[in-house]
Amino acid sequence: MITEQHGGNIFANPVQYDFSANLNPLGLPESVRQAVFDHSDLWEHYPDPYCTELRKAIAEYENYPAEKIVCGNGADDLLYRIVSAFRPEKALICVPAFGEYQKALSEYNCSVTEYLLSENNNFLLTDDFLEILKPDINMLILCHPNNPTGRCIPAELLGRIAEICNKNKILFLCDECFLDFVPDGISLRNFMHENMIILKAFTKIYAMAGLRLGYVLTGNPEYARKIQHTGQFWSVSAPAQTAGISALEEKNYLEKTLKLIPQERKFLQDSLSELKIKYYPSEANFILFRAGPDLKTKLLSEKILIRECSNYTGLDETFYRIAVRNHQENQVLISALRRCLHG
Amino acid sequence: MITEQHGGNIFANPVQYDFSANLNPLGLPESVRQAVFDHSDLWEHYPDPYCTELRKAIAEYENYPAEKIVCGNGADDLLYRIVSAFRPEKALICVPAFGEYQKALSEYNCSVTEYLLSENNNFLLTDDFLEILKPDINMLILCHPNNPTGRCIPAELLGRIAEICNKNKILFLCDECFLDFVPDGISLRNFMHENMIILKAFTKIYAMAGLRLGYVLTGNPEYARKIQHTGQFWSVSAPAQTAGISALEEKNYLEKTLKLIPQERKFLQDSLSELKIKYYPSEANFILFRAGPDLKTKLLSEKILIRECSNYTGLDETFYRIAVRNHQENQVLISALRRCLHG
Repeated sequence: MITEQHGGNIFANPVQYDFSANLNPLGLPESVRQAVFDHSDLWEHYPDPYCTELRKAIAEYENYPAEKIVCGNGADDLLYRIVSAFRPEKALICVPAFGEYQKALSEYNCSVTEYLLSENNNFLLTDDFLEILKPDINMLILCHPNNPTGRCIPAELLGRIAEICNKNKILFLCDECFLDFVPDGISLRNFMHENMIILKAFTKIYAMAGLRLGYVLTGNPEYARKIQHTGQFWSVSAPAQTAGISALEEKNYLEKTLKLIPQERKFLQDSLSELKIKYYPSEANFILFRAGPDLKTKLLSEKILIRECSNYTGLDETFYRIAVRNHQENQVLISALRRCLHG
Repeated sequence: MITEQHGGNIFANPVQYDFSANLNPLGLPESVRQAVFDHSDLWEHYPDPYCTELRKAIAEYENYPAEKIVCGNGADDLLYRIVSAFRPEKALICVPAFGEYQKALSEYNCSVTEYLLSENNNFLLTDDFLEILKPDINMLILCHPNNPTGRCIPAELLGRIAEICNKNKILFLCDECFLDFVPDGISLRNFMHENMIILKAFTKIYAMAGLRLGYVLTGNPEYARKIQHTGQFWSVSAPAQTAGISALEEKNYLEKTLKLIPQERKFLQDSLSELKIKYYPSEANFILFRAGPDLKTKLLSEKILIRECSNYTGLDETFYRIAVRNHQENQVLISALRRCLHG
């Protein structure tokens, strides 16, 4: 079996249940789908390169100035444009983490220091991290909560990291793409300085990965201008702009999500315990666990796709990540796991 | 009035007739719109990062190996990824041309030599260009037919350029985004070598600029792999992939286009002549002409948007580009021009 670079490739696999992509199990809101249909006249024209209406809607939703917001073709597009815009020479990341940080930095010849999160500590970021956050670093990328480990950065530590980055003029990119799944999650916004950027996505929280839409909140308008003017001119498609505006009008959807995720994560965690599977504590909409090295193949024979984690630095082929889905799907997964592991 | 970087920004202007974007006046095929609707279930999942089905469809349509095809979020996305993948140190382009060539090359610190197409020669590329195509150049970008001038590169010259690029291992990127509008247009494919890349777009010929879809045909599979693995991982959205596959199934649409464009271009050219407006010969779906410096503003008061060309190197605020639209629209434009110019 070929190792996939990322989860969610349902096209290379015959899949009925996709636990490999960390998307909202509530699915794309029907109102968003309808809005995209209703605005199909826009598909014939170039999209607004500045996403004026969408940025207005995000500004209102986030209570953040539109001039400090940039939209992109998913968070991944923005990551590359940010690195291209700032060209850091020396960056610091934590691993295991989303592989695109390392790839984007390397493409721009940045020297990357990796801080290894410790399994012994359940992959929680701890204060000793501060010791390697030296003034010669130009850019820090952290994921909060971290993918694939599911851990948030403790609020006090996040504040201290922000303070050091501010003092030493380190560009701090905080990937909060999964923070909307965390009830009472503490955002970097609480410690925001002008040299900071928060990366967010509609992709995951509104289950619209196929439409591609992400955005950043920057610490100052000059950063926003710089990112906007780096790379492709028309990055955000018309359907994505329509979908974003419509999604922000959703009532109850996020509330339902914030209720469903902790509840179903607990169900999965309890079930994994029962199956004697070692899992790691998670505050996010996915769970990292450890099992035999051929679990992905076994589950695929039941058309269930999970994320095998061997291509994450610091993990190996005995680590797997599963998304928290709805109860029926989670039950299917647990039953299949039971069959796989205990015959 | 702010100078727009590119045409087609109908969001910054109150527009009823858009002649500033060079899109197919037949509009998005209805079957394509319907196909995108019918596959909205895909919007919830990550799109296929390798565009497997779409590349298969393009391979069949182009009669070209799928392993030498890469898709992107519009031709512009591919341009940046190509420059990022190859990082040329010294590039040669012709001007006036699409401003993104210069911008993409500059973002990667490439030194760019501009060859100025001569107005006296109606902006036709001529043999003296060969003299500056020196072996120390790493990359050549030409647009065929050229935007905004509308001229194709004469076939014999194109062949000689290809030969020199092959001999000197110059990466030759030929932007043929508008060649599908030219009846019997001669593609670089006739002179293809392994160090060449042809850039094409669905955006223009199928009037789906809002959906963002472009592709490249590369001279060898290694180039395709390199471009595919540079930059963002999920560049092509699910709607764009569906739209591309559906568009290639269209019958008659291209035939109708190839009949309409030359006919309506002649109507526009004859009318411009009648209005004593100096225009330049074009083989494409747009026309460059010269008039008073406030024409764009005057036409906007009638809700007609044209492309003012002052931000093209080699042109100034007396140059304008108009798209060839359908007969009714073209009549509206000519009537408005008559009022503007002759009271």
